[in-house]
Amino acid sequence: MSDVDADVLARATWSALVEPGDPVAGTLVATLGAAAALAWVRCALREGPDLSSVEEHHGPLVDADRRRVSRALTRWAVRLPDLDAAGARDRLDRLDGALLVPDDPRWPAGLDDLGSEAPFCLWVRGEPDVGAALESSVAVVGSRAATSYGERVAFDLADALAGGGLCVVSGGAYGIDAAAHRGAVARAGRTIVVLAGGVDRAYPAGNARLLETVVGAGGALVSEVPPGSLPTKSRFLQRNRLIAAAGRATVVVEAAWRSGAMSTAHHAARLLRPVGAVPGPVTSVASAGCHRLLREGVAVCVTDAVEVRELAGLVGAELAAGVAADREADARAARPRDGLDSTSRRVLDALPRRGPADLPRVASLAGVSLGEARGALGLLELGGWARRRDEGWVAVPPARS
Amino acid sequence: MSDVDADVLARATWSALVEPGDPVAGTLVATLGAAAALAWVRCALREGPDLSSVEEHHGPLVDADRRRVSRALTRWAVRLPDLDAAGARDRLDRLDGALLVPDDPRWPAGLDDLGSEAPFCLWVRGEPDVGAALESSVAVVGSRAATSYGERVAFDLADALAGGGLCVVSGGAYGIDAAAHRGAVARAGRTIVVLAGGVDRAYPAGNARLLETVVGAGGALVSEVPPGSLPTKSRFLQRNRLIAAAGRATVVVEAAWRSGAMSTAHHAARLLRPVGAVPGPVTSVASAGCHRLLREGVAVCVTDAVEVRELAGLVGAELAAGVAADREADARAARPRDGLDSTSRRVLDALPRRGPADLPRVASLAGVSLGEARGALGLLELGGWARRRDEGWVAVPPARS
Repeated sequence: MSDVDADVLARATWSALVEPGDPVAGTLVATLGAAAALAWVRCALREGPDLSSVEEHHGPLVDADRRRVSRALTRWAVRLPDLDAAGARDRLDRLDGALLVPDDPRWPAGLDDLGSEAPFCLWVRGEPDVGAALESSVAVVGSRAATSYGERVAFDLADALAGGGLCVVSGGAYGIDAAAHRGAVARAGRTIVVLAGGVDRAYPAGNARLLETVVGAGGALVSEVPPGSLPTKSRFLQRNRLIAAAGRATVVVEAAWRSGAMSTAHHAARLLRPVGAVPGPVTSVASAGCHRLLREGVAVCVTDAVEVRELAGLVGAELAAGVAADREADARAARPRDGLDSTSRRVLDALPRRGPADLPRVASLAGVSLGEARGALGLLELGGWARRRDEGWVAVPPARS
Repeated sequence: MSDVDADVLARATWSALVEPGDPVAGTLVATLGAAAALAWVRCALREGPDLSSVEEHHGPLVDADRRRVSRALTRWAVRLPDLDAAGARDRLDRLDGALLVPDDPRWPAGLDDLGSEAPFCLWVRGEPDVGAALESSVAVVGSRAATSYGERVAFDLADALAGGGLCVVSGGAYGIDAAAHRGAVARAGRTIVVLAGGVDRAYPAGNARLLETVVGAGGALVSEVPPGSLPTKSRFLQRNRLIAAAGRATVVVEAAWRSGAMSTAHHAARLLRPVGAVPGPVTSVASAGCHRLLREGVAVCVTDAVEVRELAGLVGAELAAGVAADREADARAARPRDGLDSTSRRVLDALPRRGPADLPRVASLAGVSLGEARGALGLLELGGWARRRDEGWVAVPPARS
């Protein structure tokens, strides 16, 4: 077995041995390497922990560190006899999957920002080049208990992001997660589902067909735990850190005051990833978490895909500014009088619609001088805003468009 | 006529002579006093402007200032002959109204922050002590083209603010303005309507009854232009600065991308008044302006009256924190397992609902040591989360509440 294979197998073993996000395991693997760390654990469980070899690489350990290692060893001892990482790998092979480790060129670099809580490996079904897909990606997350408003927004957002070539990342839950994947798939876009359990387990079962569609559309299902693993609650919470680290930015579409999506947003903020929140009705508890993120300054308000791309730094601010300019122009077109100077506007406001008013009366009503009123009326006449009638002036009603 | 009366009448005259927010007039009145400034204008129109007396109080004027004064004089010359401030005052007396000037103890001090664009006086119908009412007040503004969502939120917000003893300030338009006044009146609360035209003119006519109700409920209609004045477009825009200056904070409930409510929000921000924006569905153009204010950092996201009070500094942050704590508690009560320590939660997650699992199996599934699993199972059994069955352990399903 080559060193590379040994590392892959050791990381697969670690992913089965410890619960996701175990910082003691992460530090040991980072210090000694995955295979040597595993050998150290087996030896420590037989003969007692020899921390001098760890200190050699890591530097001196304080008593609290030593106690954490002892506690971790008793935790790991329970599972070690039953481990079958090679079996899990065979199971993955039968699913035509891939096992990625940090040295793999297809490894998503963003996960390294998790430091000692980074996953040991990724178990993947579908497109194996997860790193390339995530290079331009946005996490779109939210509640299972979504409203039809939230699902529509998630779908439309993912559809538009996929249309712009971005990959959507989310969990595999009902509600916002599922709507986001559906939106991306509807645009034949890539989407990555990060699961809390094994990639061979569709959870919840009602999303099994959606997960197959994601794989069929060039996306992937990924997990840090081996095939066969159950999606427990603590794994769901740890899974959220992967979603936050995988995306260039995280957008919360709907979230209750406390919810998993809120934890994903906070993970993203801790990783200095931009966080966006989609506002919704204040009467909807499903949006309370989004509004909380806005109030607490954790998230920026985002309302469409252009703003999300800008948030993720995946578009020049010019495009967003262009949209703002378009909106200005639309607003101006709807009210073309904004193109008039302020004196002309005042004079126009002062013009009666029915009986005509003479020049001094118009000037007085408008609060401008006679000269200003005369000049403005000339311009307004040319522009079709005003016309002369019976020695005076009247306003011309705007044409219906 | 006493000096006080002379000042009141001169200010009333100024309010009829110039358009709202005329900074040349504001500066002249601030420099010379209202009555002397008026005498100066009459003299300047007869004999040409003598700027030396202005410079004596104001300091040297540059050429641009001199040109601005000349242009202003030609503007004012048009209206001066027709002015009848005493007549306007009689009209107000017949309405049982009050004319407030800055020296009046009932003058709202917040308006002074407008500097040279402050109004000369306030024409008031209803409760004359506008200053006392505005001491604890919030401006609730928004679009005429409001949705039923926006009207409901404005009504509920004003109702709750009035219930807490705050005065609501707004314009007299359909939509958000009217809903806010209705909400305050429904709670028998005071509410102040700032009109763009004279206080004897209900505009729009459809709100005439509402305006009478406001007066009847101890509120007031106020305007900076005399009775009989028309509500022109430029007066609407200038009126917005009064609303922004009058309230301790301004809250935008619904606003299109460009709208009068946006101008009020920007006036408030320039006056360093706190600005809040109520979010809404991103699919609603009526909320686009609110979201824009949030994105641009002009406004803070507010979702209920407690947050609005906090914004206005009219409540200790403790109350808002108390609400946050209540929400946490509600969320926790809905998911009491959050009260468990993390090891117990892991063990609980690992427990099967159907067939029992023995201690080593539970420890292995949970990824904890045998000792940790034993301790956690004891606690879970005491708490009614787990029970023993056939040499093993099962989870107890949560009771339906």
